[in-house]
Formats: sequence, structure tokens, C-alpha cells
Amino acid sequence: MPETLTLYTAKICPYAHRVELALAEAKAEYKRFDVDLGNKPEWYAPKVNPASKVPAVAYGGPDVPPDQPSPNSTKIAESLVLLEFVADLYPSAKLLPEDPVLRAKVRFFIDAVSNKFNPAYFSYVITGKGNQEGLIQAFKDIQVLLPETGFAVGNEWSIADASITPFIARLFVALENDLGAYAVGEGPKTLELIKTSPELKRIQTYIQDVTTRPSFTSTFDPELIKTGLTKRFANITRASS
Amino acid sequence: MPETLTLYTAKICPYAHRVELALAEAKAEYKRFDVDLGNKPEWYAPKVNPASKVPAVAYGGPDVPPDQPSPNSTKIAESLVLLEFVADLYPSAKLLPEDPVLRAKVRFFIDAVSNKFNPAYFSYVITGKGNQEGLIQAFKDIQVLLPETGFAVGNEWSIADASITPFIARLFVALENDLGAYAVGEGPKTLELIKTSPELKRIQTYIQDVTTRPSFTSTFDPELIKTGLTKRFANITRASS
Repeated sequence: MPETLTLYTAKICPYAHRVELALAEAKAEYKRFDVDLGNKPEWYAPKVNPASKVPAVAYGGPDVPPDQPSPNSTKIAESLVLLEFVADLYPSAKLLPEDPVLRAKVRFFIDAVSNKFNPAYFSYVITGKGNQEGLIQAFKDIQVLLPETGFAVGNEWSIADASITPFIARLFVALENDLGAYAVGEGPKTLELIKTSPELKRIQTYIQDVTTRPSFTSTFDPELIKTGLTKRFANITRASS
Repeated sequence: MPETLTLYTAKICPYAHRVELALAEAKAEYKRFDVDLGNKPEWYAPKVNPASKVPAVAYGGPDVPPDQPSPNSTKIAESLVLLEFVADLYPSAKLLPEDPVLRAKVRFFIDAVSNKFNPAYFSYVITGKGNQEGLIQAFKDIQVLLPETGFAVGNEWSIADASITPFIARLFVALENDLGAYAVGEGPKTLELIKTSPELKRIQTYIQDVTTRPSFTSTFDPELIKTGLTKRFANITRASS
């Protein structure tokens, strides 16, 4: 039986969203504390996560209010560490398959998200150093890992799906609203391409499948993401398309 | 009972060495194929690892010679994926603790090796863009994670230890022989500092502990590393110290 778990999180953050998805899939009972990333509480870094980032978890120890974390709980950070932790805490939720080969496929998929998909997303949307071609290639790099139907490694949802869904969801909100460091007007065109290109047929179905699950719809607030991205890109200089 | 396992590896490569350590600790029976990284067999990328890197594993399928890999075995790449895979295949070897909190500590340690220790090692030794101070700081960043005695997360060796040991061992050979992109003559001084600084007392003991284990001594060949590094740094321009 898992002990008390408090998740320090922020709705805007895709890394924190990964852990919210896993906890929702596990139907875990937990406390949450929303960290204002623009104005973090003074106690957060010294008492919860020295790196001062979300997500972080306080696990075990006495039952305390989240804003008064106990020194007697274990603090755990890093979203991918936390995905494995949630899978370990709730084995009956099967957030990881039991078969060692399938487990390896989950981890290889997550590695591709970290080292191929996310860099392309950040360089296209956030820094503006990437281009549409690089982003489309990243979708192909992920698509090639997908089985013919179902989720990242088969018919059961896993932490592999948790690793990518928050990033795709935020990308779509950014593109739809033309928010990002790419050229003005390019966002909706790129989104159209991702959603309709015959070369991306398999991943289009996959995106449908992961974003219609209750774990996703109950943890994602597109309006909040839109507001956050609007603020973020309000004052940057962008090329005209 | 695990199926046939073939490891595609190279003695020079620290990533491949991670997996050799885990397999040695698990007392696993496996076939090995040493890939000549300077002259890879033509079949390696198409039949084993499209990324053309070591380590990679062929698991299951018919019993074939390693240089004739079967399409019916599963191919798995990426050293950290493979560490978890070996731990999953040989649960009785306890390469990962059973307690979810300790498992999270293993993975957090590995994350620090990937994102703090290794970047400092590469930038000091390989690219020459880093400095001694950055390297010493990286040792401190790892040291702070160590328990008072024993291995990375306690008295039992784990895949956390496998993740860092090959890099420390290669660093020491490089420094001892003044091989690297840092200024000429600086290597032995940096090594002396790492080995004797009172600020690094805990990690000095740790390094002793991980490098005297049979899994390490039976899989590490310092002369081969020295030869490889000598070749690598033969023609680079270095600052004088």
C-alpha cells in the first residue's frame, strides 16, 4: 500500500503533466500543490527540490499540508524518474508491461522522445532555431516505433505514452494559435500538415488515441496553455512568413 | 529463464562497458561480438542497430552465430535501456532494489551521471571546452548523492554503479597518461587532485569500491583504453600548461 504522496506540479509544465497522467492512470490518491513557476515559494527549493523545478514528489512521512513539507518524507524529482516511480508504486495499474522486452521498448520509446522528439519541438517552437522539416521528421522518428495499432508499445497504455503526450498537446495549442518562435502565420499550416499528411497516418491515429483518454482530458487545460504561451511569446521578434 | 542473448560491444566504449558490468554482476551467460568501431561490419546497422552504435543486444530467436543475426531476435539498443533490461531479465541478481523509493534513487543517480557527470567529463577530456573546476564540481555533484558507505544507493551494487564506473575508469586512464584535450601536463595533476582532495573523501572511497569488484576487474583493460586514447589524441592541438 503506497504511503502519502504529494505532487508539486504546474499545469503549464509538460514534464509535470507526464506525472499527472501516470497518477491518473493509476487512479492514485494524492495531494497536489500548484507551484507558481514565475514566483516560487521560498521554501520550495530548500525543502522540496534543490533544482527548484517541477515535477517533484514528497513521499511518505507524516501527513502534512503540502506547503509545510516534512523533512521526514522522501523527495523525488525528474519526470522520467517519477514515471518509473509511479509504475513501481502501483504495479496493478500496469503502467509498465511485465515482459522485459516490452519494458525495454517502453524505455527506448522514452529515450527517443527525450533525444529526438523534444529537441525538435523546442528548436521549432521555443528557440526558433529549428524548422518545419525537422519537426515533421521528429514525428516520423516516433511513428516508426509505433506498433500497427494501439499505444506506444501495444494495446496497453504505458509510461511511454505519458512521456510524449504532454508535449504533443502543447505543440498543437501553440501551432493552432500561431504562438511560437517560428515565422508569423506558419503555425496553423504546420499543424494542418501534421494532422493531414498521408506520411503521418499512423501517428495521427496515435495522437487521437492518447488525447481522448480520460487521464488526458481530465488533466489538460488548453486555455491555460494558450494563455501561458501567449504571455511567453508576447515580446519576441519573429520573422514574417 | 532468459533466452539467448548476444551483446554487440566494444572494449573501448564506456556505454557498452555499462552493460558488460551488469551482465557480469548477473552472472549471465551470453555471447559477445566485438564491433570494430573504426570499421563496422556492413551487416551491423541494417541487421542489429540502425543507429550503428554499441552497445546493442539481440535477444531470443534461433541460436545463430553473432555475425549472422537472425531477423527473429529482438534487437535492443541504448545503454541505459539495456541496464534496465538486464535487471528485468535477472531479477534474482537484484541489480535494482525492490523498494520503489530506492529504485527512484537509482534512476535519479543515473540521471545525474547523464546530465552532470558525463557532460563535465566530455567537455574536459574530449572537447577541451571544459576545465578542471567543472570536472571537480561534477565529482561533488555525484558525491552528494552517495550514502555514507557502500554503493550509489546503499550496500548493494546496482545499475546506478554500472552507469558511472566505466566513465570514471576511462577518465583516470586518460588523466594518468596525460591524454585529452586539456593543456599538456595537466592530466596527472587533475588526477592527483581527484584522488587526494579532502573535499572528495567520500567519492574516493566509492571509486575504490566500484573499481575493485570482480565485475569491473574482469571487464576492464586499461592498456587497451590507453592505446585507444593515444590514437584519438595523437593529432590534436593542445595548449601548454
